[in-house]
Amino acid sequence: MRVLDLIIKKRDGENLTAEEIEFLISEFTRDNIPDYQMSAFLMAVYFQGLNAKETTALTTALAKSGEMIDFSSLGSVVADKHSSGGVGDKVTLVLAPLVAAAGVPMAKIAGRGLGFTGGTIDKLESIPGFSARLPVEKFMELVRENNLAIMAQTERLTPADGKLYALRDVTGTVENISLIAASIMSKKIAAGAGAILLDVKMGKGAFLQNRDEAFHLAETMVRIGKEIDRRVVSVVTDMNQPLGLAVGNALELKEALAVLRGEGPADVEYLSILLGGYLLALAGKVRNPEEGQEVLSRLLKNGAALEKFKQFVHSQGGDVSCLEDPALLPEAKIIKTIKASKSGYLHEIDARKVGIAATILGAGRFVKNQAIDFSVGIVLNHKIGDMVSEDDILAYIHANNEELLNSALNELAGTFTIAEEAPEPLPLVYGVIPPFPS
Amino acid sequence: MRVLDLIIKKRDGENLTAEEIEFLISEFTRDNIPDYQMSAFLMAVYFQGLNAKETTALTTALAKSGEMIDFSSLGSVVADKHSSGGVGDKVTLVLAPLVAAAGVPMAKIAGRGLGFTGGTIDKLESIPGFSARLPVEKFMELVRENNLAIMAQTERLTPADGKLYALRDVTGTVENISLIAASIMSKKIAAGAGAILLDVKMGKGAFLQNRDEAFHLAETMVRIGKEIDRRVVSVVTDMNQPLGLAVGNALELKEALAVLRGEGPADVEYLSILLGGYLLALAGKVRNPEEGQEVLSRLLKNGAALEKFKQFVHSQGGDVSCLEDPALLPEAKIIKTIKASKSGYLHEIDARKVGIAATILGAGRFVKNQAIDFSVGIVLNHKIGDMVSEDDILAYIHANNEELLNSALNELAGTFTIAEEAPEPLPLVYGVIPPFPS
Repeated sequence: MRVLDLIIKKRDGENLTAEEIEFLISEFTRDNIPDYQMSAFLMAVYFQGLNAKETTALTTALAKSGEMIDFSSLGSVVADKHSSGGVGDKVTLVLAPLVAAAGVPMAKIAGRGLGFTGGTIDKLESIPGFSARLPVEKFMELVRENNLAIMAQTERLTPADGKLYALRDVTGTVENISLIAASIMSKKIAAGAGAILLDVKMGKGAFLQNRDEAFHLAETMVRIGKEIDRRVVSVVTDMNQPLGLAVGNALELKEALAVLRGEGPADVEYLSILLGGYLLALAGKVRNPEEGQEVLSRLLKNGAALEKFKQFVHSQGGDVSCLEDPALLPEAKIIKTIKASKSGYLHEIDARKVGIAATILGAGRFVKNQAIDFSVGIVLNHKIGDMVSEDDILAYIHANNEELLNSALNELAGTFTIAEEAPEPLPLVYGVIPPFPS
Repeated sequence: MRVLDLIIKKRDGENLTAEEIEFLISEFTRDNIPDYQMSAFLMAVYFQGLNAKETTALTTALAKSGEMIDFSSLGSVVADKHSSGGVGDKVTLVLAPLVAAAGVPMAKIAGRGLGFTGGTIDKLESIPGFSARLPVEKFMELVRENNLAIMAQTERLTPADGKLYALRDVTGTVENISLIAASIMSKKIAAGAGAILLDVKMGKGAFLQNRDEAFHLAETMVRIGKEIDRRVVSVVTDMNQPLGLAVGNALELKEALAVLRGEGPADVEYLSILLGGYLLALAGKVRNPEEGQEVLSRLLKNGAALEKFKQFVHSQGGDVSCLEDPALLPEAKIIKTIKASKSGYLHEIDARKVGIAATILGAGRFVKNQAIDFSVGIVLNHKIGDMVSEDDILAYIHANNEELLNSALNELAGTFTIAEEAPEPLPLVYGVIPPFPS
């Protein structure tokens, strides 16, 4: 097999065999295919696409490029949840302990934030002592003991995906649904997940702003799951305004704790229970998602999920006293408010601008490995549809530096749109794939 | 300027500015742009194309990447002729001394053969002692003294083109008309040519088999010439059957000498005079191509072109006695014939198969820097349209090795098609761009 022939085959719109894709990925992982050939191949894929079989073959090849975690000795299907990334998305912090408390093992491999969306690992690391840098063996042990562990991505799993993504990132070949789907699914498969809930975010604060693309990604991942015998549900959800009120690591952790205490914003609680219900049904723990949602509502109300979260944080070295007294978490020195310029209905809160402003404040990274400030961020005081009066506080900016604060305020110009008429209600969920049999 | 932004701009179908293209090429030449980004850019160009302005900007940027030869002190426009490559194409060997004998300086930078088409330098190097590895200064001096010099490509001229072509060659991005046109034209411009005749070959034995693509390439190069103030004519000519009868280095040189003596195949003589006539007109030596063709016919008949060729060979170190007695040129040990399997009209002589068979015999290179055998090749005994009887000799195979001879004979199976009815006559010239005012 010659790499050049495979590049030309794809360039000319032909389909590659599973063996050809396996060859490309395994040889690329071993540094036997130079980056310049792989990037030409990726650009050809950008234009010609990958069909269903090719996408599945790519997923499998990426998964097999490193270690594959095997949870079969657990005797129970292991669940995982993935969000395609959004602003203020702390659902994993609520859903994971909920599902674990319901008796379904949650084994999650999570990423750090990059660009305007945050990462679960960063949010958890705002807890002093918490570590997600677990050896695979420790990760498996914690899942076995507590039904819950969250591990940072490691080079031992799907090394080809990391290498490929780094190349896509600098060659304009990120934006392809098949490549995105294969990247996400390969990591879930290598991590040993049998039941996978995918939250595909759609809107201004998401990677995908286009409805067709979001559903295409959701369907592609469900199809891959079907072909390689994993139970997968994709839910397409709104990311036009931030989820909940808080954006920023410690701020989001506090909000997640509030939700676990039954005192959090309704949208975060609703989505955590909705998605978690699908996972319980996928894992065979309940007969249908509605039953799963009832189970999870109970576990939220009776404090079992909060207890599970504390156990999980403690097991991974985190200081649990912070969870009992969130004032012990990192706090910013400056809090500045943004006020309404006029009275009316809030029509828009541009999630992307909020995400970028939070990143400017130090909550996120513009480039890899950048240090972040756990304490800073933005807390909304209103959501789309709220009626506000002139000078009402719309948001609190938590900052540690006047200069960054001013840059963030500049970025936030035009984020909030107020109008006289009430806006159309914004749906939280756009669709579930496959339509789940109740 | 960020390379990634330029890749994405082209990927998304936008046009780059001349400054952006100049940036890409100059930074790539300086190794400041990694191959993996350039190959992704090239693949984006493959799919989105380059418009007229972009193609001209690329041509200029490639030309400026190295030394630019300046013949302005010569006081006369310098001519160059380029063929897009064909089987048995020895026209340069006839045309160059003809044009030089007519008083128009010919300064040609030529390539070596690769794949199934031959290269002018290889054909000339079958003359013992001949060297085309000239320093630029020597090249200029010979043009000044003799009106004729032929130099092998050097890294001093258009280094970016060499680097870019090497990358295109291994990334499936060769086949794009704009990239091909810019590559050809940049070399002509850097070599100081003011009047350029481009012979675009079309057919089975050419790089381009499609009429639209051939005319597109021809038009693109004429348009580039117009935009950067060079006089350019493209002629699209047939390459379905080999040109002339001989294919192989010393064999083609002998045929060119026969043409210069007025004893060669009609198609080679006709094309040499036709294309040369355009060059004389382009260079302002005559009022129109027809007048140029008359001048050249005379110079062929009176032996002036042959004398010019001898002077040129001698100046570049070649043994002139070989030109007077071609039997002194390298000769193969084995000559094997291919005979007609039945009587009828020759309908087809697949030029590609003949070219590949000659390469197998050792006349060409399948990979760069491969050593070649000057003596071997194929000499046709008939051309398309000839009536042949069963067992008539169709071709002579000149070989030095039984094994290679057998491989070549295998390749030649199906090369000659004989049918009862006479075929439609095959045109030698498909079009001239721009239509030349007579």
